[in-house]
Amino acid sequence: MKATLKDIAADTGFSVTTVSLVLNNKPSKIPEGTKQIILEAAQRLGYRPNQLAVSLVKKRTDTLGLIVSDVSNPFFSTLAKGVEDICRENGCNMILCNTNNMHKCDLDYINMLVDKGVDGIIYGMAGDSTLKNAIDSCNLMKEQDMSFVIIDRYFKKLHTSYIGVDHLMGGYYATKHLIEMGHKKIACITGPLHLDDVLERLKGYKKALKEAGIKYDSKLVFEGRYNMESGAAAFPWLMKTKCTAVFAFNDMTAYGLYIEAKKNGVSIPKDFSVVGYDDIYFSKILEAPLTTIKQPVYEMGVKATEILIEAIKNKKRPEEQFVYQPELIVRSSTRKFE
Amino acid sequence: MKATLKDIAADTGFSVTTVSLVLNNKPSKIPEGTKQIILEAAQRLGYRPNQLAVSLVKKRTDTLGLIVSDVSNPFFSTLAKGVEDICRENGCNMILCNTNNMHKCDLDYINMLVDKGVDGIIYGMAGDSTLKNAIDSCNLMKEQDMSFVIIDRYFKKLHTSYIGVDHLMGGYYATKHLIEMGHKKIACITGPLHLDDVLERLKGYKKALKEAGIKYDSKLVFEGRYNMESGAAAFPWLMKTKCTAVFAFNDMTAYGLYIEAKKNGVSIPKDFSVVGYDDIYFSKILEAPLTTIKQPVYEMGVKATEILIEAIKNKKRPEEQFVYQPELIVRSSTRKFE
Repeated sequence: MKATLKDIAADTGFSVTTVSLVLNNKPSKIPEGTKQIILEAAQRLGYRPNQLAVSLVKKRTDTLGLIVSDVSNPFFSTLAKGVEDICRENGCNMILCNTNNMHKCDLDYINMLVDKGVDGIIYGMAGDSTLKNAIDSCNLMKEQDMSFVIIDRYFKKLHTSYIGVDHLMGGYYATKHLIEMGHKKIACITGPLHLDDVLERLKGYKKALKEAGIKYDSKLVFEGRYNMESGAAAFPWLMKTKCTAVFAFNDMTAYGLYIEAKKNGVSIPKDFSVVGYDDIYFSKILEAPLTTIKQPVYEMGVKATEILIEAIKNKKRPEEQFVYQPELIVRSSTRKFE
Repeated sequence: MKATLKDIAADTGFSVTTVSLVLNNKPSKIPEGTKQIILEAAQRLGYRPNQLAVSLVKKRTDTLGLIVSDVSNPFFSTLAKGVEDICRENGCNMILCNTNNMHKCDLDYINMLVDKGVDGIIYGMAGDSTLKNAIDSCNLMKEQDMSFVIIDRYFKKLHTSYIGVDHLMGGYYATKHLIEMGHKKIACITGPLHLDDVLERLKGYKKALKEAGIKYDSKLVFEGRYNMESGAAAFPWLMKTKCTAVFAFNDMTAYGLYIEAKKNGVSIPKDFSVVGYDDIYFSKILEAPLTTIKQPVYEMGVKATEILIEAIKNKKRPEEQFVYQPELIVRSSTRKFE
């Protein structure tokens, strides 16, 4: 049972008022000896002040919220680790909220985090977010005077603090690598096409094709959902395109292709080459370790948290934006096409 | 900016007292028409009551906490999904806390969840928990009158509500499968040996050996940490044992073996057979899809949440225990030894 002020009063023989004054550190003329007796009893009896009430007074909770769209994708669990490590260094706790890619849950969780009185939010928006959805989320946080940094997905029109990656360059590197390996017919399996990061990767794909004098063909583009299921669903389509290589817009999508390829006796990279995107930690232990575009996801979590904590300390809104450069990691899922 | 009672009073022309009475649904003689005007203004201006204050009065927050030890292991992200789905069905939010296998963080997060006023906790303890640590965590929750269900790891002496798996049978099935494939020299890479679930798996391993008339040899046991790193670290040792098969106490440990085997030109299952434990979703896309012991982890998350929510509704402490039977999934990482 929770010890109350009453219990401490009964234990020490002082009045509830005296006990309350001491434990709430209110100015009073209570002698130091009395204070010590009360503080000792509070500790011994396991008294914990009602933190809801304490938070109401203090207006700081040393808790940050992190909203992610799919915690089952190691991309996001690695990001969470980055956020958490910096929280811990700063004596903060992290509340993790998983939206399963549903914008409605973004709003629910923002409301909940506001209600729980977190000091700030690191916001990774759901995969079904349109620009309007993203604006709604941002407005909801702004109306509540909540400090926030957006991470990963973003729309340039939001003009908020943001940590991300240059996806145009990511898409460009992935496609250029395939072209350099001699491929000319290169398919891509995208994420949801209403997302800016997907459109940027697609721009990078087109840019690399153009530089190599290869005509862009929209029939070689399949709209996926950034998950294994949509990679698997794209497989029969991919086989029909007669492409020799494919750029999967994230590693989970590539895994879906691996599963179907195996089932159908199709060999990666003998029958077709695959480039992924993210470099999550399973990619190197696949049958053909995955060539992929590495996002520095742990560092992104760290950076977002540092910016947010700094802003909260200085009682101003976080404004910084930081865009990392992606990196091509060549493994065995791509081969020379002759 | 957050709209206050004052803003609504200014907007409608009624007094702050009147506005407060209406918005806090206090008994009063305020006419219905006035109420409607105030409620409409509250909605239009985006008024949100201070939920910290509301929670203090209502004593329920419709929020559950889930503590897990390693969210980067898909075992726990799948568990979280089970918890979350049932929370959503019941109009609850889930706060996810990741402890990185540090018991100290278990205590920190329990305190935080108490402070945030969650209605109950689903507690997956850290991998470094001793029985004493586990008792400390349980006592901390009991002292705060917090409802909780323990999931996954457990010590029988705790006598609390608990959802888990019969790990003795799991260890037995894994080892028996290898024996049936003709293996006689079978190593095992355990998790931390102070954990009950590890000791149970080990008992199952011994039981299967005994039934087959194979003498238990403690030199064939390597204490791992339930992660890829410790699987990789065990590899040189494993090669020296001259075993033909190994039982890895979880799939992540098996992945560590796969990485080192590949690096060293050792083939699974040609050179040695591997059985894992958990059946996380990557296990089927490995070069040699992993034979493993399936834990019904999503269902475990569902069950724990149902028990907890039911107990909270009935204002009693959750007491139910539920132990699932594990299942052997045979894939390609094990082969007949002749």
